[in-house]
Amino acid sequence: MIEIDGDRLWHTLMRSAEIGPGVAGGLRRLALTPEDKAVRDQLRAWGEEGGFPVTVDKAGNIFLRLEGQTDGPPVLVGSHLDTQVTGGRFDGILGVLAGLEIIRTLKDRGHVPRRPVEVVDWTNEEGARFSPPMMSAAAFAGVETLDWLHDRRDDDGVRLVDALEAIGYRGEADVGKPVDAYFELHIEQGPELHETGTIVGIVTGGYASHGATVRFHGETAHTGPTPMARRRNALVAAAYAGAAVNEIGLAFAPIGKATVSRIVAWPNKPGILSSFAELTVDVRHEDAAAAEEMRRQAMAAIDEAATRARVDREITSTWRFGDEVFDPDCIALLRDAASALGVSSRDIKSQAGHDAYYMSRVAPTAMLFSPCVDGITHNEAEDVPREATIAAANVFANAVLARADRP
Amino acid sequence: MIEIDGDRLWHTLMRSAEIGPGVAGGLRRLALTPEDKAVRDQLRAWGEEGGFPVTVDKAGNIFLRLEGQTDGPPVLVGSHLDTQVTGGRFDGILGVLAGLEIIRTLKDRGHVPRRPVEVVDWTNEEGARFSPPMMSAAAFAGVETLDWLHDRRDDDGVRLVDALEAIGYRGEADVGKPVDAYFELHIEQGPELHETGTIVGIVTGGYASHGATVRFHGETAHTGPTPMARRRNALVAAAYAGAAVNEIGLAFAPIGKATVSRIVAWPNKPGILSSFAELTVDVRHEDAAAAEEMRRQAMAAIDEAATRARVDREITSTWRFGDEVFDPDCIALLRDAASALGVSSRDIKSQAGHDAYYMSRVAPTAMLFSPCVDGITHNEAEDVPREATIAAANVFANAVLARADRP
Repeated sequence: MIEIDGDRLWHTLMRSAEIGPGVAGGLRRLALTPEDKAVRDQLRAWGEEGGFPVTVDKAGNIFLRLEGQTDGPPVLVGSHLDTQVTGGRFDGILGVLAGLEIIRTLKDRGHVPRRPVEVVDWTNEEGARFSPPMMSAAAFAGVETLDWLHDRRDDDGVRLVDALEAIGYRGEADVGKPVDAYFELHIEQGPELHETGTIVGIVTGGYASHGATVRFHGETAHTGPTPMARRRNALVAAAYAGAAVNEIGLAFAPIGKATVSRIVAWPNKPGILSSFAELTVDVRHEDAAAAEEMRRQAMAAIDEAATRARVDREITSTWRFGDEVFDPDCIALLRDAASALGVSSRDIKSQAGHDAYYMSRVAPTAMLFSPCVDGITHNEAEDVPREATIAAANVFANAVLARADRP
Repeated sequence: MIEIDGDRLWHTLMRSAEIGPGVAGGLRRLALTPEDKAVRDQLRAWGEEGGFPVTVDKAGNIFLRLEGQTDGPPVLVGSHLDTQVTGGRFDGILGVLAGLEIIRTLKDRGHVPRRPVEVVDWTNEEGARFSPPMMSAAAFAGVETLDWLHDRRDDDGVRLVDALEAIGYRGEADVGKPVDAYFELHIEQGPELHETGTIVGIVTGGYASHGATVRFHGETAHTGPTPMARRRNALVAAAYAGAAVNEIGLAFAPIGKATVSRIVAWPNKPGILSSFAELTVDVRHEDAAAAEEMRRQAMAAIDEAATRARVDREITSTWRFGDEVFDPDCIALLRDAASALGVSSRDIKSQAGHDAYYMSRVAPTAMLFSPCVDGITHNEAEDVPREATIAAANVFANAVLARADRP
């Protein structure tokens, strides 16, 4: 067994927490902004100081490498350094910096693992600047193309590839390569571990999640004289759909969740009916069949909303994740490490999206959760218990090492 | 009786239609933009060429003056030159340029009216850039203060006073002065005149209209694990309220109208619940009691939406207009002119907001409507029949002159 340097891990987390501060103690570090560049530069500096060669691929994903005894595919460990607009200091960040701490510890101990270990920071996991979330892991896993990725645009119309160029992180390496396994440590983002006083969650899988971007096309007209029966207000369709989606979430609670997270309309001004509206919708449930039923109901509600508002509707993108099955061997390594270290654990399913889902399509993958105070996340008040977090990182480190060192 | 130069009027309308073109034959000339400056400069040039002294007040309202035999309060004639994002070529513009045509005609004929006649272009009538609509007439009428007006902000946070400065239309004149009467010619913005083949509508009053800006305050959180019962998604409240307001409109149709025209949320991103949403709502009905009932129901629906989404709600502004009563003497002058010219007319109530409503609080006021093809407006396809428009302008001119020349 190895033991990481918990103080050093905490120090790197606190250093990261200085880069791109929010207004309430958290972070506002959107993908490919100057703040994201600053934390990427810090990660690269840590890599260079530690003697870990740094590679950047064409999607801007950053890799720090600890060489192994053999030159085979690396064990990949990581998560993301970008945050939501009102982001926390640990969401994603813990996964990258725990990875850094693992290779630092191995190097300090002079332990050369059988296989290389690489740490990855995935570009734009949050989807807060460029939609959809987890796009770089999707491209790495071959689910999406690099051209598609480069062509994503933020709300100001800036293309992702130009944003990469602007901060100097359009790398040379191809996106995607063989990896031996993928491990991700993440805060739970729910209250279960914290409320039950459990140190780690062995993630056995995820909630089945379906998302869609829906567009409504109507017609501009005057808000006054235009008869109700002639109106084609796209914003009204979005409102009906948003209300209906929330009702579906309430009907499937407490396990199911349904969310409308974004409405954009145009012209969206007083005095005029909107000819365009776009809605982002997602539904999630632990049971895949129930999630599918929620998806079906949401789509029916969207159609009904369009009909009632007399507008056309278009589904411009859909995504699904969470029902991928993580690798039993990798899960066993996490369970064994927790057991060997005497750290309390429980099986848990993730309700959030993670890069690990896409990685599970191309490599044996597992995730470990650490506690999140009161389950608060995507909020600047996000916090973690320090000692439990370090204990979780130790469990994680030993599982990663067991994988890298296996015969 | 006088007769205006219909070709000249049409020519000025077509010249205006070249300034700030949209993408589909209409105009995009938002208040205090470079496009608005360009049409203001054109109006000023027309004033100077015609020998009509030009004054700009501290709200940016522009006045062109034809002197009268006496120096008493002028008969004021006008409307607005700004447009919606997808605006037409005639909404508001006809009223200003018909005013210009009247003073040009009187000057050509050597007819010095007993009282001065002034033409006005009101700043930001549409409310498409700075909310609320008709704010400058409100300030002129003393309903709002100049400080309040100057402090309105557009969606980019630009203050109205700075926008006035930027285009050189922060004038010296105080806002508000005695006027003998106010007349406004406007396209109907509804289908009634056009469908019935009537040339002019004698506006006897307006639909009682109530508007409000509503804010919902919730909390950011993750769209995945956050239990439905703990969510405080402000965007969901806006969706519930928007849907409910539309239902109220349908319940009171065909006379009543209810609109949700604008939703803004924050952070409004995939993956996160919004802590803030703002909604613009209005209800209108010919019958004041019914309009009040619609308003009451809308407010109750907004409260219910906030409760269901577990968010706080705040009403940041409310407005009402339309149930002001226009002046019987001024209305009679319009009716007499139509009759004398043998132009078909019918009484009509306006369903839109107009500067005339605010002016009716401080001066005898009347409005005349001209036809609008298919009632299409706030849409680039807005159009008018040329000959009927010129005939309406002649009716209007003779009523204005009768008022200015009365003993």
